Amino acid sequence: MSLFITFEGIDGSGKTLQIKLLKEKLENIGLDVLVAREPGGTKIGEKVRNIVIDKNNTEMSYTTEALLYATSRAQLVDEVLKPALAEGKIVVLDRFVDSSIVYQGKVRGLGEELIVDINKYATNGLVPDITFLLDVTPEVSIKRRNKRFNVDRLESEGAEFFQNLRHEYLHLASKERKRIVVINSAMSPNTTNKIISKVLKNRKLI
Amino acid sequence: MSLFITFEGIDGSGKTLQIKLLKEKLENIGLDVLVAREPGGTKIGEKVRNIVIDKNNTEMSYTTEALLYATSRAQLVDEVLKPALAEGKIVVLDRFVDSSIVYQGKVRGLGEELIVDINKYATNGLVPDITFLLDVTPEVSIKRRNKRFNVDRLESEGAEFFQNLRHEYLHLASKERKRIVVINSAMSPNTTNKIISKVLKNRKLI
Repeated sequence: MSLFITFEGIDGSGKTLQIKLLKEKLENIGLDVLVAREPGGTKIGEKVRNIVIDKNNTEMSYTTEALLYATSRAQLVDEVLKPALAEGKIVVLDRFVDSSIVYQGKVRGLGEELIVDINKYATNGLVPDITFLLDVTPEVSIKRRNKRFNVDRLESEGAEFFQNLRHEYLHLASKERKRIVVINSAMSPNTTNKIISKVLKNRKLI
Repeated sequence: MSLFITFEGIDGSGKTLQIKLLKEKLENIGLDVLVAREPGGTKIGEKVRNIVIDKNNTEMSYTTEALLYATSRAQLVDEVLKPALAEGKIVVLDRFVDSSIVYQGKVRGLGEELIVDINKYATNGLVPDITFLLDVTPEVSIKRRNKRFNVDRLESEGAEFFQNLRHEYLHLASKERKRIVVINSAMSPNTTNKIISKVLKNRKLI
């Protein structure tokens, strides 16, 4: 029984920790779990990632950036995700097409159509069985990030950016109610983890 | 008066030399000419090109390859081609979307629809004013290549591959008669150059 789970959410929403906790729980009940991240996750994808995150590439157009994300995704789908799912593994992915729709399509303003069209080919038709959108307010996100980076100032510009992202994520979830499950991630990590497991059990996915 | 010219054709069809001769001729009559190549042509595009041409990346999927070409193109269009055309320059490009359609879409078998869809965004609507398809038989192509690489053996596998490419190029030209001009490039370089100039003059492009 293969299962493809993705996690989405703004920075500081707790994706990394929740993926770690879910992986442990699934492995404890004997399931074979593969965790991957975007962009990257393959040798070619990491090379593409290096171009995307290189701060010297200031001249990069938004379209180029969106195509690079899609390229990294295409290689990950063909080389890692599809083979793992074909072997019956549970694949847990940190960000997928939804991130591109929200970040590049909506907040950057490239448009949802461009992202959906490009990714139709990049994903080769692969759609998550379930997506957990970890939802926190910008205030919680910024507080967690500041703690992580040892900063103790609330950035007002950051707050508006995260507010936009959160709004677009929730809008996307409202259009894809069946696939995207919104989880309030301001609770303790263990509580959030329990809710995620419960959703997977209720839907008979594990 | 801006003008966007592309050259297409199989390896050994004489694109590089014809572009050089055309550039000289246009500059001699006082026109401002910008020549660029694909993939590459920008700092980011060259990084993408390095991934595409790296022979160690044997695991690269065809979709990833097509997306990398489109990415390099997107950056070239936004950073170089559109600004040059806006300044009224003549832009001469060695390969553009037609190459992707023929190589990836047709001969690799990814399908024309995928290439056209992705490149609709990569080119941001930019279409050549005129495209010269330099047409040679696989025999001429292979002979010229062998001379270049100091090989003197006719490869039968190579011949079939070039035959397919040539066929797909001619098919594309038959569907885009207005934009794509097929030039028999087995003649002397100077004769081919004269025909190209004549076509540009007849169409009142120069």
